[in-house]
Amino acid sequence: MTDTATLIEVGPRDGFQPEAKFIPTDLKLEIIEGLADAGLKRIQATSFVHPKYVPQMADAEEVCARLDRGKGVTYTGLALNGKGVERAAAAGVTHIELSMSASDTHQRKNARRSRTESIAAYRDMFALARDKGLSVRSGVMCCFGCVDEGHVPPRQVLEIAELYAELGADEITISDSTGMGHPKQVKALLGDLRKAVGDIPMVMHLHDTHGRGLANVVASVEAGVTAFDTALGGMGGCPFIEGATGNIPTEDTAELLHGLGLETGVDLHRVAPLSVRMEEFLGKPLSGKLYRLLVAGNADTGLRAAS
Amino acid sequence: MTDTATLIEVGPRDGFQPEAKFIPTDLKLEIIEGLADAGLKRIQATSFVHPKYVPQMADAEEVCARLDRGKGVTYTGLALNGKGVERAAAAGVTHIELSMSASDTHQRKNARRSRTESIAAYRDMFALARDKGLSVRSGVMCCFGCVDEGHVPPRQVLEIAELYAELGADEITISDSTGMGHPKQVKALLGDLRKAVGDIPMVMHLHDTHGRGLANVVASVEAGVTAFDTALGGMGGCPFIEGATGNIPTEDTAELLHGLGLETGVDLHRVAPLSVRMEEFLGKPLSGKLYRLLVAGNADTGLRAAS
Repeated sequence: MTDTATLIEVGPRDGFQPEAKFIPTDLKLEIIEGLADAGLKRIQATSFVHPKYVPQMADAEEVCARLDRGKGVTYTGLALNGKGVERAAAAGVTHIELSMSASDTHQRKNARRSRTESIAAYRDMFALARDKGLSVRSGVMCCFGCVDEGHVPPRQVLEIAELYAELGADEITISDSTGMGHPKQVKALLGDLRKAVGDIPMVMHLHDTHGRGLANVVASVEAGVTAFDTALGGMGGCPFIEGATGNIPTEDTAELLHGLGLETGVDLHRVAPLSVRMEEFLGKPLSGKLYRLLVAGNADTGLRAAS
Repeated sequence: MTDTATLIEVGPRDGFQPEAKFIPTDLKLEIIEGLADAGLKRIQATSFVHPKYVPQMADAEEVCARLDRGKGVTYTGLALNGKGVERAAAAGVTHIELSMSASDTHQRKNARRSRTESIAAYRDMFALARDKGLSVRSGVMCCFGCVDEGHVPPRQVLEIAELYAELGADEITISDSTGMGHPKQVKALLGDLRKAVGDIPMVMHLHDTHGRGLANVVASVEAGVTAFDTALGGMGGCPFIEGATGNIPTEDTAELLHGLGLETGVDLHRVAPLSVRMEEFLGKPLSGKLYRLLVAGNADTGLRAAS
């Protein structure tokens, strides 16, 4: 176990994406800048998907053009097809995420392709991204369960991860898109994955749909994975998975990791007001537990003294 | 690690207690009966505190009089002083919970007594309860932090637990009243407590205020404690601790424990409609993540297949 952990902020992509109310580009950039100032060194800023399917991400190019590149932050984008990769490269993105689902049903809904077609398409996308000089993070969605298929056999996750390793992915993201994962399952799968992909860095992308998000963070750390996708205030979800609300919150996850003795470099007190800003803009509470307590000055947990 | 875990339902006491809207006695009994039918074998049904301070519990005697004693369920009550113990015994309660806080400030707010006065009063209450032939569960509140004092030194918890062991408590409850506990701290304290109190059964009473409730359940199980206070739908909190909302939810905790391979005997699908009933009565969402998914039939987690 190392003494640091990495938070990768995905709020501006996975957190904003399912919201029906369009978040103005200015506000998106205000939040992204605030997250950078709070110490987040990696931020997923947008998604290059067709605006017909995800209207919230229609301003991807403008967001990228206006990112402050002087903050020492790595900004990433997500794409689901070759067109998205082309757009990302043209927008000046240097790091891209390309995903596939371990659940065939979810993959069909998300990308409108079968598993076999998806694998062929993935190889093409990956080659294209490399042609464009992009660093590629390869994601596996629905690793721990799918609302349509129920249990997803670990073999289906391992096969995709092995493909990513063969392609030479820079990083592999293991997503519990539906929040169905449980700690025992997380530990077992991460152990198997480590054997399958060698020393390629792994990132956990967890949702708190069943309340086990932070329990699964602890399980991941115990399995040796210390990088996590999080979203300010626990925003997020997948527009194609019913009930898949809530990435694990940046504030809550950082506090947990600090309590485990792992430094993240993230200043919770600077993230929380951004969550309040989004809560006010959207007119509804976010799912994170901590941001309101932090802003109310009511969250002196004594974690430093305790650990 | 055993292959079973015990859930002690505290919703009708800790869950109902902070609600300003009076829950009619008929509805309280409907929920208690439903919980018994769902497999909860221990239910904290009410609290014998002064109705001036907790008006929601003003019907304690009527609730106890109308409990269905034929269901094989142990019903318990909570008291904070001798008067409460007298009332509980007169109401036919056989199991009582008597608590003290590890935080002096919280103890003063909760019982309006200093630590020294509280210890003397506790000895008297305990003796009185034994005189009345009651089984006593002894609770330590604020074991992992206090909003007023911040960090609570483990020594303060151990001292109270040692007093309980000396008195011969039947069971000791370790409460994270503020939800400030974190997994590393939970494991460390439970290890120290086990040495201090010998083989007296311990129960964890966790709140999800900081989102770490279920992570702390896993830590407790790993430390050898497999009994948990839970509340349907994650209702609850302490009326004297600001922001201390949400006991860990019965449904979410049971599903987590089942995923860890521990059987609870609780049928989640029969608990969830009771949470929906309370959500509808109160006109606000409860904090549990799972109950709505269960009622919507959208929570096939495949946990059985996976474990």
